[in-house]
Amino acid sequence: MTKPVVCIIGTGLIGGSLALALKQANFSAEIVGAGRSKSTLQKALELGVIDRYQLSLEKAVQGADIIVVAVPLGAMHAVFKDIAAGLAPGAIVTDAGSAKQSVIMDAAKSLGGHFTHFVPGHPIAGTERSGVAAAFAELYQQRRVILTPTDKTSLSAVETVTAMWRAAGAEVECMSAEHHDLVLAGTSHLPHLLAFGLVDCLNNLEEVDEVFRFAAGGFRDFTRIASSDPVMWRDICLNNKEAVMDMMRRYRDEMENIYQSLEAGDGEALKAIFERAKKARDDFCG
Amino acid sequence: MTKPVVCIIGTGLIGGSLALALKQANFSAEIVGAGRSKSTLQKALELGVIDRYQLSLEKAVQGADIIVVAVPLGAMHAVFKDIAAGLAPGAIVTDAGSAKQSVIMDAAKSLGGHFTHFVPGHPIAGTERSGVAAAFAELYQQRRVILTPTDKTSLSAVETVTAMWRAAGAEVECMSAEHHDLVLAGTSHLPHLLAFGLVDCLNNLEEVDEVFRFAAGGFRDFTRIASSDPVMWRDICLNNKEAVMDMMRRYRDEMENIYQSLEAGDGEALKAIFERAKKARDDFCG
Repeated sequence: MTKPVVCIIGTGLIGGSLALALKQANFSAEIVGAGRSKSTLQKALELGVIDRYQLSLEKAVQGADIIVVAVPLGAMHAVFKDIAAGLAPGAIVTDAGSAKQSVIMDAAKSLGGHFTHFVPGHPIAGTERSGVAAAFAELYQQRRVILTPTDKTSLSAVETVTAMWRAAGAEVECMSAEHHDLVLAGTSHLPHLLAFGLVDCLNNLEEVDEVFRFAAGGFRDFTRIASSDPVMWRDICLNNKEAVMDMMRRYRDEMENIYQSLEAGDGEALKAIFERAKKARDDFCG
Repeated sequence: MTKPVVCIIGTGLIGGSLALALKQANFSAEIVGAGRSKSTLQKALELGVIDRYQLSLEKAVQGADIIVVAVPLGAMHAVFKDIAAGLAPGAIVTDAGSAKQSVIMDAAKSLGGHFTHFVPGHPIAGTERSGVAAAFAELYQQRRVILTPTDKTSLSAVETVTAMWRAAGAEVECMSAEHHDLVLAGTSHLPHLLAFGLVDCLNNLEEVDEVFRFAAGGFRDFTRIASSDPVMWRDICLNNKEAVMDMMRRYRDEMENIYQSLEAGDGEALKAIFERAKKARDDFCG
């Protein structure tokens, strides 16, 4: 196709950074912003993240070749409903949600015949910050984007979305939505829950002030993700409930095993677990 | 006193960095290294960390004014036994162990009349690296050192150890050993167990290669402490067993609460927990 008109719904860290990256790569003819908040869109315009904006989602997608829905998972369904009537024939819709099975269900319900041109996607990128002011063009450089097309998804639509993310600097891979949701439950959703849970647990101690005063650098790193957006993470948990609960149960068993080894004073068992973990972490994270 | 002769038993990251800091501050007349491994001591000498070394612990402490025991918790008892006969009258012994009640018991058993000159200490510093090659003089700059004197500990001994750590750049505070062990169980020992447990749990998944391949930056930060030394952490857990088990039970209850909220689809409850955690983390860690 000639340079596409890209409509970004939700110009926060994820959507805004994609807009900036696509502009830098000269990928798009125009970038149209859309979303609920006029002040956010105005700010995105002022920051040069988008070329123009539309508050009506139905109008925003009219004439767009690619529509990127970068809103919290809890808002996906409503956005799909709002845009369905405005989509041009052949327009490609994709998203940036952190869970994929739930988004696919939302899209199947609301996009009608357009569902064949919906490409479920998830850029594995982000920081604990959020909002358009935090957006930057390099966010996706050498980061992975996972696409999870269904058996109904148009191959050419997958190719177009792949080209878009590559233009933004990312590596694109495909897998099933179910597999994605389990893998991400383990490497992202569970760790966030563990970090939120740890800080809340310590915060409930009577010794709270001291507890945090004597925290060292390791604690700061370990709890960084507990500064993430609560609403976004509520939505992720609820929208990937089964896989997250599965991982939480596996983790509970692991910690119960560690607890029992400690209770029994079994230093060999503890050392074996720590050695396995250190080796795995050193191997995979360098 | 005139400049003290300082004997450092265990010239790894913690002992070696203290030696370098004391040299830089011109605090000591001489720094004598001691330990089990001749090659480590030879390396410490070559790196300028110590002025000379002694393989016999009993001989190493002869003539020393301050003895710093910076060995793994599991080795404390044997070291105290070995040095007891060599200590000069009035020589001050301190340690750098991450748990304090167990070290106090070890010292009470082995140091005899010298126990009044034993000052239990814990510098809240370190990295996931270890060994003398990782030592650096600035490790303790603006870090906290907790001293946990007992009701038998000489006040002047506490003052001398305080002066030593201040010379190394640290802020020194006193609290009870019991309180120290609970606070550190929460901010350090539990987080390490959670990180070791998470990596081991994911490593046991069939999807293991992919799980780590799709890990993002947050996961790297979250699991950094799982690269820590397995033997050291085995010893810390075993030597602070009651407090660590107490914190593990509190954490298990917290995660069970999160699990049940998720199972019930209770988004409000999840959001409330995440918001409390984010606020506490932002408040305390900036």
